[in-house]
Amino acid sequence: MTAKRLAGQPVAVAIRERTGQLVSRLSSEGITARVAVVLATDNEATAWYVRSIERAAEQLGVHCQVLDLASGTQSELAQTIRALNADETVHGIILQTPLPESVDPAALVQLIDPAKDIDGANPLSLGRLSVGQPAFAPATARSVIEILEHYQIPLAGEHVAVVGRSAVVGKPLAQLLLQRDATVSICHSRTTNLAEITKAAAVTVVAVGRANLLTGNEVSDSSVVIDVGTNVTEDGQLVGDVHAESVQTLVRAMSPVPGGVGTVTTALLILHATQAAVAVLEDASLRGAPMAARR
Amino acid sequence: MTAKRLAGQPVAVAIRERTGQLVSRLSSEGITARVAVVLATDNEATAWYVRSIERAAEQLGVHCQVLDLASGTQSELAQTIRALNADETVHGIILQTPLPESVDPAALVQLIDPAKDIDGANPLSLGRLSVGQPAFAPATARSVIEILEHYQIPLAGEHVAVVGRSAVVGKPLAQLLLQRDATVSICHSRTTNLAEITKAAAVTVVAVGRANLLTGNEVSDSSVVIDVGTNVTEDGQLVGDVHAESVQTLVRAMSPVPGGVGTVTTALLILHATQAAVAVLEDASLRGAPMAARR
Repeated sequence: MTAKRLAGQPVAVAIRERTGQLVSRLSSEGITARVAVVLATDNEATAWYVRSIERAAEQLGVHCQVLDLASGTQSELAQTIRALNADETVHGIILQTPLPESVDPAALVQLIDPAKDIDGANPLSLGRLSVGQPAFAPATARSVIEILEHYQIPLAGEHVAVVGRSAVVGKPLAQLLLQRDATVSICHSRTTNLAEITKAAAVTVVAVGRANLLTGNEVSDSSVVIDVGTNVTEDGQLVGDVHAESVQTLVRAMSPVPGGVGTVTTALLILHATQAAVAVLEDASLRGAPMAARR
Repeated sequence: MTAKRLAGQPVAVAIRERTGQLVSRLSSEGITARVAVVLATDNEATAWYVRSIERAAEQLGVHCQVLDLASGTQSELAQTIRALNADETVHGIILQTPLPESVDPAALVQLIDPAKDIDGANPLSLGRLSVGQPAFAPATARSVIEILEHYQIPLAGEHVAVVGRSAVVGKPLAQLLLQRDATVSICHSRTTNLAEITKAAAVTVVAVGRANLLTGNEVSDSSVVIDVGTNVTEDGQLVGDVHAESVQTLVRAMSPVPGGVGTVTTALLILHATQAAVAVLEDASLRGAPMAARR
């Protein structure tokens, strides 16, 4: 037996279709969705990722502006975020990590207007998500849900194990799963009974950032496994958190790395940006304000 | 066998001692901690609860002001909260539920300054708690932790089942437990395998608001059970969410209702108020501002 492959590509295609519909709607009102990426590193992998966001935006007719502040100070970065909040032509703001060591990231992310926080970086976005108010989840956390829903994996009433408790994946993902009526077990490095929990769970999501964390010993033949990890091996290969060889012959379905969650993330960021732009449009029409005043 | 009784009273006593120390410290700086309770109902049970907050404050030398806005509109309540935020002599704000039906509670709680949000009502407080930033948790959620820690129930690496996913108990409690390195399973009305999870868990916390939700069938002889429920039976008795008769002969330890979590909550609110006042003091001394300017 080999597990069904939960590839990210068809999920990303479906998300781009939804985005395209929103772009058309915005276009008919004379609006172009705009994303601003605040970049403060010359890290090569980050530069590559930001280019992938730019490409994804361009393909869909969304404007993407990269603000390169590689030697930016705390106050320069704060000022940039405040200016983007105030700029009504900007609908989405991404504060790209890593940030310079001299900078306090917590103080910066809480400046991002939740309405423009398309990567769910502000703790207020996470709080709103937790209490069921409208908010953007981090794109990676949301990608996991998109994959599960695309492949029609049931979540309501199901037991889902989330391995990892980061603010960007594990914690917001737990909230998204609870919203969908899943029973959620949050496991992490200090968990002593991982196999007991993941074997009993219908779905296991691994988002720890350690290669080979989940092996054949922690799964069952009914498991659905989503691998959020992106680790680079000594010989330069990209691998997930799941020991693919031992797991894929045992489980029911599994998302690959590469070609899984990572494939969906940038598509989702652009969807979020267009959703943010549509929300401004709907908000303005609710208030009866002329559109031009909101652009 | 009868379960060890995890009574709230000794926990509340210990919390009042900690509060007393903070009150002395504030007093030596000429500061009186002040709580404001915004009340917008004539509900009898609520009035009783608010009086218990007043009494708890008075006993410890904390000033408690009840603002009775029983026929208050949205804008009057919002204005009141804004005024309390701006008032530097007020250190803690409690927006007491229930609120009038015409009022949108979500719009009000997000106005509460997180530094004064001593009952963790603002989603920003929950978000900050989730990402590990300083924030007040709702007093009820925090009471559960205080009881477990007082009776030296280990949490790190242990599996804790939280039954209930409310914004005031289940969700913030899950964050407090994760902070303490517990593995956390969040169960709720749609959970299909409750007994499987709660039997395997070292600690089960029930916060659903339904009498007899947890019975002897869902526990094991090593279980520690914390009952957050407060339900009034047809004949006027206060009972928890746990079917005490069947559970207490089976489990290792259990908190009673009444006399458990509820006993700790008001003590914690007053502790939070003094902590908020001390934070202002420390913040001011860090900045080198004269104390008088902060009062």
